[in-house]
Amino acid sequence: MTVVDGETQAAAFEVPIVDSPPEAQQVGWRHRHLLDVDALSWPDIELVMRTTDAMREVLRRPITKVPALRGRNVTILFYEASTRTRVSFEVAARNLSADVVNIAAATSSVTKGESLVDTVRTVEALGAQMLVMRHSVSGAPYLAAEIFSGSVLNGGDGWHAHPTQALLDLYTMQARFDDGSLAGRKVVILGDVLHSRVARSNIWTLTAAGADVWLCGPATLLRGFEAWAGRGAADGRRFHVTSSVDEALRDADVVMALRIQKERMAAGLLPSLREYAARYGLTRERLAAARPEALVMHPGPMNEGVEIAADVAAGAQSVIEEQVRNGVAVRMALLYLLAGTARS
Amino acid sequence: MTVVDGETQAAAFEVPIVDSPPEAQQVGWRHRHLLDVDALSWPDIELVMRTTDAMREVLRRPITKVPALRGRNVTILFYEASTRTRVSFEVAARNLSADVVNIAAATSSVTKGESLVDTVRTVEALGAQMLVMRHSVSGAPYLAAEIFSGSVLNGGDGWHAHPTQALLDLYTMQARFDDGSLAGRKVVILGDVLHSRVARSNIWTLTAAGADVWLCGPATLLRGFEAWAGRGAADGRRFHVTSSVDEALRDADVVMALRIQKERMAAGLLPSLREYAARYGLTRERLAAARPEALVMHPGPMNEGVEIAADVAAGAQSVIEEQVRNGVAVRMALLYLLAGTARS
Amino acid sequence: MTVVDGETQAAAFEVPIVDSPPEAQQVGWRHRHLLDVDALSWPDIELVMRTTDAMREVLRRPITKVPALRGRNVTILFYEASTRTRVSFEVAARNLSADVVNIAAATSSVTKGESLVDTVRTVEALGAQMLVMRHSVSGAPYLAAEIFSGSVLNGGDGWHAHPTQALLDLYTMQARFDDGSLAGRKVVILGDVLHSRVARSNIWTLTAAGADVWLCGPATLLRGFEAWAGRGAADGRRFHVTSSVDEALRDADVVMALRIQKERMAAGLLPSLREYAARYGLTRERLAAARPEALVMHPGPMNEGVEIAADVAAGAQSVIEEQVRNGVAVRMALLYLLAGTARS
Repeated sequence: MTVVDGETQAAAFEVPIVDSPPEAQQVGWRHRHLLDVDALSWPDIELVMRTTDAMREVLRRPITKVPALRGRNVTILFYEASTRTRVSFEVAARNLSADVVNIAAATSSVTKGESLVDTVRTVEALGAQMLVMRHSVSGAPYLAAEIFSGSVLNGGDGWHAHPTQALLDLYTMQARFDDGSLAGRKVVILGDVLHSRVARSNIWTLTAAGADVWLCGPATLLRGFEAWAGRGAADGRRFHVTSSVDEALRDADVVMALRIQKERMAAGLLPSLREYAARYGLTRERLAAARPEALVMHPGPMNEGVEIAADVAAGAQSVIEEQVRNGVAVRMALLYLLAGTARS
Repeated sequence: MTVVDGETQAAAFEVPIVDSPPEAQQVGWRHRHLLDVDALSWPDIELVMRTTDAMREVLRRPITKVPALRGRNVTILFYEASTRTRVSFEVAARNLSADVVNIAAATSSVTKGESLVDTVRTVEALGAQMLVMRHSVSGAPYLAAEIFSGSVLNGGDGWHAHPTQALLDLYTMQARFDDGSLAGRKVVILGDVLHSRVARSNIWTLTAAGADVWLCGPATLLRGFEAWAGRGAADGRRFHVTSSVDEALRDADVVMALRIQKERMAAGLLPSLREYAARYGLTRERLAAARPEALVMHPGPMNEGVEIAADVAAGAQSVIEEQVRNGVAVRMALLYLLAGTARS
Repeated sequence: MTVVDGETQAAAFEVPIVDSPPEAQQVGWRHRHLLDVDALSWPDIELVMRTTDAMREVLRRPITKVPALRGRNVTILFYEASTRTRVSFEVAARNLSADVVNIAAATSSVTKGESLVDTVRTVEALGAQMLVMRHSVSGAPYLAAEIFSGSVLNGGDGWHAHPTQALLDLYTMQARFDDGSLAGRKVVILGDVLHSRVARSNIWTLTAAGADVWLCGPATLLRGFEAWAGRGAADGRRFHVTSSVDEALRDADVVMALRIQKERMAAGLLPSLREYAARYGLTRERLAAARPEALVMHPGPMNEGVEIAADVAAGAQSVIEEQVRNGVAVRMALLYLLAGTARS
């Protein structure tokens, strides 16, 4: 782990020995919180990816447990129900030997008449050292981070951000491409982009990775993104917006379908699920326009037959289960890296 | 554990050293899943009983924990609420040092718009190595077993099967009889047999054990069982069906009362709980017709004053708490045995 | 830990070495259950306070875990939702390395048609060795203690008692006063005293500690307390009752605001939350009548702007977060002390 002249950049990519306590890290991780991907530099992202490699190796062992976070309290405070993300963080934390406290705040009396600030202060006083938080209000984890003295991990806030999802998506794509790179790859995000925190966080990481990003969906579900695309993402990184599925899918390397919420119809943004499926659903016929080896992704849970056909979801090009599997490893990596910073 | 000529049968009954990892088993257990008792041979059942003896010994220690399943992920996916069975599996798994993930699927977003197949695949990708499942649809765990690469344990499916309940019932009876045998013992299952997975699984194990099995209840709640009794259970093993409580209870060795669901009245199958209690409730008077030392059983939770009188439930003949206690030991035994097969 | 002549009293205050198993205690703790504070002598309370000091020291370590209750089953059976108290007990038990089983009985099928007696027997048969219980019916934990063979800890029963809250309140006050004593200190409990188990348990411990206790609130929410004050608490220990906030707060050393339940208005006991806030809310102006260094307390969760103003709750005099923090330590101390008695 020594750094010699001219190798500083490489040193930032040094991978921690994940069996050791995170305090022993000699890697270049500087963040105390994970609120969104836009706070991460490309070397930061690379470090997350390489640490995830190390965690995948742990997951292949007969006993998938390392003592790294032994005795540390990871509290999972979810204001929106999400078994999938909750269990992923829970398993990740326990694989690192942390103690996990689950609080489902929607149905919880901790929040009765209490402000978010009071709840976060209470949770900390109850022993939380790392706080994984999901909230329906965009920005809520930023407020939490201002008052919480440990690390806050954003597990999804409103339409705003879902950083661990974007990082697991990136990891899953890189792992599947021979050169491990997204540079120049056409990646399509298909569906309800407007309400999607998954899309927003992915735009950042995918353009940072050099991908050719396309957003596609009904015009009502792309509102405002055309203007954003005109300005570009951070550092003027370009992406494309279209309502034409044909244009979007043509020669795509990756197609990521987003979940359609039934509530969107009540709001008048969609005529019917059937019409949505007919016009924007990811079917085998539509997928044929992409490259033959194109990856099919979905953040889950799926509405099969609506935004994605069952045979596509279960087909040979689908990496949807790999996304879930990599999600545990990415969250182990992030908990590990953040724990090292929180203590130092 | 060496097997010499003529001792093969005995070797199948060899009990595992339950403090060791299950991979070290040299016993004759061959099953990867526990879906129903009908897949178990009599030597299999005997092995479960003897392994349960070993687990009861663990439960009598000051610290009731062995490292056998250390670091293994046991996921409890329940589509029907059942605190009793859920906690029993949870305590059993933790006594073996496994990591337990609880998913209450009824209220869970993991299942929103997701097929059972997708949910099982997701749960596996999240790290589940053993899956305990309860579902309101008969046969659901069979579907899960087809796609899950670890072990599936059926924690109750529809009206179909509840194998761990039948095995703990068998264990509880055998432990109470001097010769440890049910051969020729009259065992009565009293109540709503029609809707009972407990009854169905018990018919199999009890007739296999050589018991003289009697099903008793209102004719509306025995529909179809008369014809089944005519054909006999597996291998033509006979049992009896009657609506006469007097005939059923006369000289019985065991009386197992089943829970009455209030929903049955809405369906027109029962006039009223009061009338049911008057005609079929297990009262002290009725119990007097059985043998003096007859065992009183109930799978719980009880409606006291309906299918069973409070004084009978709490009386000297009741082994209802022993059933609960043995349930933890039986589930430890099954998790242990299945884990050995899953890895080998 | 040797006891020489004339030091018997001091020996009763001997603090256990909390890293050791509780069986090794040589301290004078004699209780198997914690049902209310009125069963505790003053030396008992002192022992809890000193053991809490030892637990606070554990909580300051890098890893806040001692092996004292390793492998012991602590079951948390809550018939009323309370994330705060539930998590506090859960974290306390895990810090002692116990296994925790959570049962939310309100929504739980364990209780369907089951009597409390049956539920407690079932929970014990499932492996519970210590039972933390919250119930909406006053006295329910006493019934549980009659049949449970381990230790019962009352986590709040009806309007009756909340012993762990009273002990953490006492600890928090003592820790803040230079001489560690409440003798002669004016302590005001402000709000809905009538429906408050927190108030009832606090009256006992605070008068035992020699504090000058004042209960203050609208007359409708003090009903019966005037007569009780006339008789005095145990051993004729006096306290005061008034509806005048001015009289109550004048020169107070501690002001503890109680939570107002919105349900009280429906019952006609309160005109409106706005009027309550105007007349009895703990504002900065009102607090100015107390001593300059007076402590502000609240058992949580708070209705900010109703019984307490946000700036008072977050102000320099507030020890509300310390109450939460000390709650974990007090509960660790109680679990530890009770476990020693349960086994001996």
